[in-house]
Amino acid sequence: MRIAIASDHAAIGLKAELREYLIELGHEVADLGPASADSVDYPDFGYKLASVVADGTAERGVALCGTGLGISMAVNRNPACRCAVVSEQLSAYFSRDHNDANVIAMGARMIGIEQAKACLHTFLETPFGGDRHVRRVGKLSNPPVSETA
Amino acid sequence: MRIAIASDHAAIGLKAELREYLIELGHEVADLGPASADSVDYPDFGYKLASVVADGTAERGVALCGTGLGISMAVNRNPACRCAVVSEQLSAYFSRDHNDANVIAMGARMIGIEQAKACLHTFLETPFGGDRHVRRVGKLSNPPVSETA
Repeated sequence: MRIAIASDHAAIGLKAELREYLIELGHEVADLGPASADSVDYPDFGYKLASVVADGTAERGVALCGTGLGISMAVNRNPACRCAVVSEQLSAYFSRDHNDANVIAMGARMIGIEQAKACLHTFLETPFGGDRHVRRVGKLSNPPVSETA
Repeated sequence: MRIAIASDHAAIGLKAELREYLIELGHEVADLGPASADSVDYPDFGYKLASVVADGTAERGVALCGTGLGISMAVNRNPACRCAVVSEQLSAYFSRDHNDANVIAMGARMIGIEQAKACLHTFLETPFGGDRHVRRVGKLSNPPVSETA
């Protein structure tokens, strides 16, 4: 798959490790930055990641910050993105089966590398469950007009 | 505080318990539903919750579904909401200190009642850290125009 990965400065180490893991798995990876440990603002990188998932340049996204929370808020501003913050595999599984998540968010300060790899693997391998979930996921793409800026 | 709470059918039991807990703590609680266990779509209740937080009717929101993930995606469509999915207190703490989260999301199928109460308590008691986080939180209120529907 074509996978885009982005983070803030707190998560550049995790980003580098997961980028290598994705390449080992045979995926095509676009690293959207940052490239250094200089302080940045997570919304900037979340919005950049959301835009390449929304326009189809990337089929999936990986969003990383200290907790995964801040960057997930930014990604989920985009109605085309369904970003799931996870810290264990069962949530990663349900994020795909129920929510057809196309972006996974994780916190570099919250989970270790093997847990992160396991969550990412589950996120990539689990199909969407379809059925009753299709209607709900469809509603996530169409928020009320008042919900958008 | 004025706190609104909403869920899907999977989380009506957790919603009832947390509503009572909030009342015990002295908060004013608006239960936005659902009122029965009939199957509903989590985006509908997430959007309803987001709107009352965005317009100030509620100062904080509590969003519940099976995993917390689906309803959090819906709430975060609203640029005025910063919804954090948590399953332990440290993330609840950081969601306030770093992200000034105004909505907490939790999964009724993922965590137990005492963990949920502890996360909610931390979410309500932790102040925003301000400082460098103010600029980042500000950017969450102003997504790029292309990010919105």
